[in-house]
Amino acid sequence: MMIKRLCIIGVGLIGGSLARALKAAGACEEIVGYGRSPEALDEALGLGVIDRAETDLARAVAGAEVVLLGVPVGAVEAVLEQLKPLLEPQTILSDVGSTKGSVVAAARAVFGTLPPRFIPGHPIAGTEQSGVAASFADLYQNRKVILTPGEDADPQALSLVREMWQTAGAEVCEMSVAHHDEVLAATSHLPHMLAFTLVDTLARLEDHDDIFRYAAGGFRDFTRIASSNPRMWHDICLHNRDALLLMLDRFTDELGQLRQSIAAGDGEAVLETFERAKAARDDYGDTHC
Amino acid sequence: MMIKRLCIIGVGLIGGSLARALKAAGACEEIVGYGRSPEALDEALGLGVIDRAETDLARAVAGAEVVLLGVPVGAVEAVLEQLKPLLEPQTILSDVGSTKGSVVAAARAVFGTLPPRFIPGHPIAGTEQSGVAASFADLYQNRKVILTPGEDADPQALSLVREMWQTAGAEVCEMSVAHHDEVLAATSHLPHMLAFTLVDTLARLEDHDDIFRYAAGGFRDFTRIASSNPRMWHDICLHNRDALLLMLDRFTDELGQLRQSIAAGDGEAVLETFERAKAARDDYGDTHC
Repeated sequence: MMIKRLCIIGVGLIGGSLARALKAAGACEEIVGYGRSPEALDEALGLGVIDRAETDLARAVAGAEVVLLGVPVGAVEAVLEQLKPLLEPQTILSDVGSTKGSVVAAARAVFGTLPPRFIPGHPIAGTEQSGVAASFADLYQNRKVILTPGEDADPQALSLVREMWQTAGAEVCEMSVAHHDEVLAATSHLPHMLAFTLVDTLARLEDHDDIFRYAAGGFRDFTRIASSNPRMWHDICLHNRDALLLMLDRFTDELGQLRQSIAAGDGEAVLETFERAKAARDDYGDTHC
Repeated sequence: MMIKRLCIIGVGLIGGSLARALKAAGACEEIVGYGRSPEALDEALGLGVIDRAETDLARAVAGAEVVLLGVPVGAVEAVLEQLKPLLEPQTILSDVGSTKGSVVAAARAVFGTLPPRFIPGHPIAGTEQSGVAASFADLYQNRKVILTPGEDADPQALSLVREMWQTAGAEVCEMSVAHHDEVLAATSHLPHMLAFTLVDTLARLEDHDDIFRYAAGGFRDFTRIASSNPRMWHDICLHNRDALLLMLDRFTDELGQLRQSIAAGDGEAVLETFERAKAARDDYGDTHC
């Protein structure tokens, strides 16, 4: 038994899948779920994802060895404010937010510093679905979890959070907050912006019904992430603004150059771009995921 | 037996998969493959995709009931030039090019008009792979094939090309050349431009190794089409330039608006865009493909 009591604040796809994995591994004595919606908590309880449901935050976190924030990044600061008077000194705190700069800033705003026992984390996993009903124990198998501990991080807290994700099947690595936010802007946040924008652009065309009717498999794969939770991605965009805008501008510049090459009939430049991209994509392959 | 002799000019993924499907249905007495590379033809012969391989065009098309152009759109005009003195009057001609305006223009340049027995076509199917080794008989099952016949199209030729694709499992529909090129620019050509550009943008970052290492499943799906054949997509871009640039500009405008909303912290506008996109994508669903 690794964790005596784990409290998950917000039992959705991410928190729910971790709970299922830890239960399957017999790694938690008790998993307590906290949320504002009694219906969602009842669902999590009914599915056997959590052992106890609490809509009172003080009762939820009392005696918890680990408290995990599974809420959208836009809600982190408000939840930390509520948690502040309730957290016991030995409690380990972690989160799963897709942006880490904003989470660390929220912690600093609330606690004046990043508490040594608060280990920010981000599992690089998920689907375009959300909610506890979509959760499954294998979500983290062979996926990466990035931790961005501060310099004063408590080694025992870091070690336990690391072990918790490894138990769920993930490979855990550490990097700086800034590097995390750059990497994720490039590989996750920007692609989501592009998919949302493409689908919306097409949906606004006059003959959009006809256009979607003739879309093929490539379009389906390309736009799958545009089915993701709008509120969650709204939060991510606004909370990783600087890194995202930087990547967006690089992309827009390169797209503008491609446009110019096509307009000018510069086939050599078009071909070079496509060949570089294919080489990089083939090199990356399907095996990394 | 529907077609006595079918000649496929360019036996790759598209032509090879059609050949396999027609053979499986017993719909062709003989399938002749023509190509410039003896190795590729030998491979097609060895795989049983074609019955006879010819590297001499006159021998390849002699006595063919249907000649199908399975070459990249950039090669269509040159192939038509070579075919012109060889085609027998009763031969039905069709193609599989991803752009139809350029194919019709090539036919007009070579023949002075779109010949009544030339039925331009485009199967909305494929994978990011190419070559006859990647071909399979089920590629067209429940996929759409768009035909863009001219006003003077020979009804018997149109009917046979239609039946050929239906035999391969496809749903065949007709539309104007201009509408085809608009629809495909939106759902296929633009997404490929975005995927190629995104991967190339990331590959050019200093820490690109690290960036790709942390990419997750959404990125893998989003960028799969960037593994497509660069030469083929180079051709498509340059041969559907007007429709593609129009869609590219609409997309860039909307991306610019999203950028502005994010930069200004206008969460409401960001959320509205994402919600419209999710609704359109969910409505389109995974069932159409």
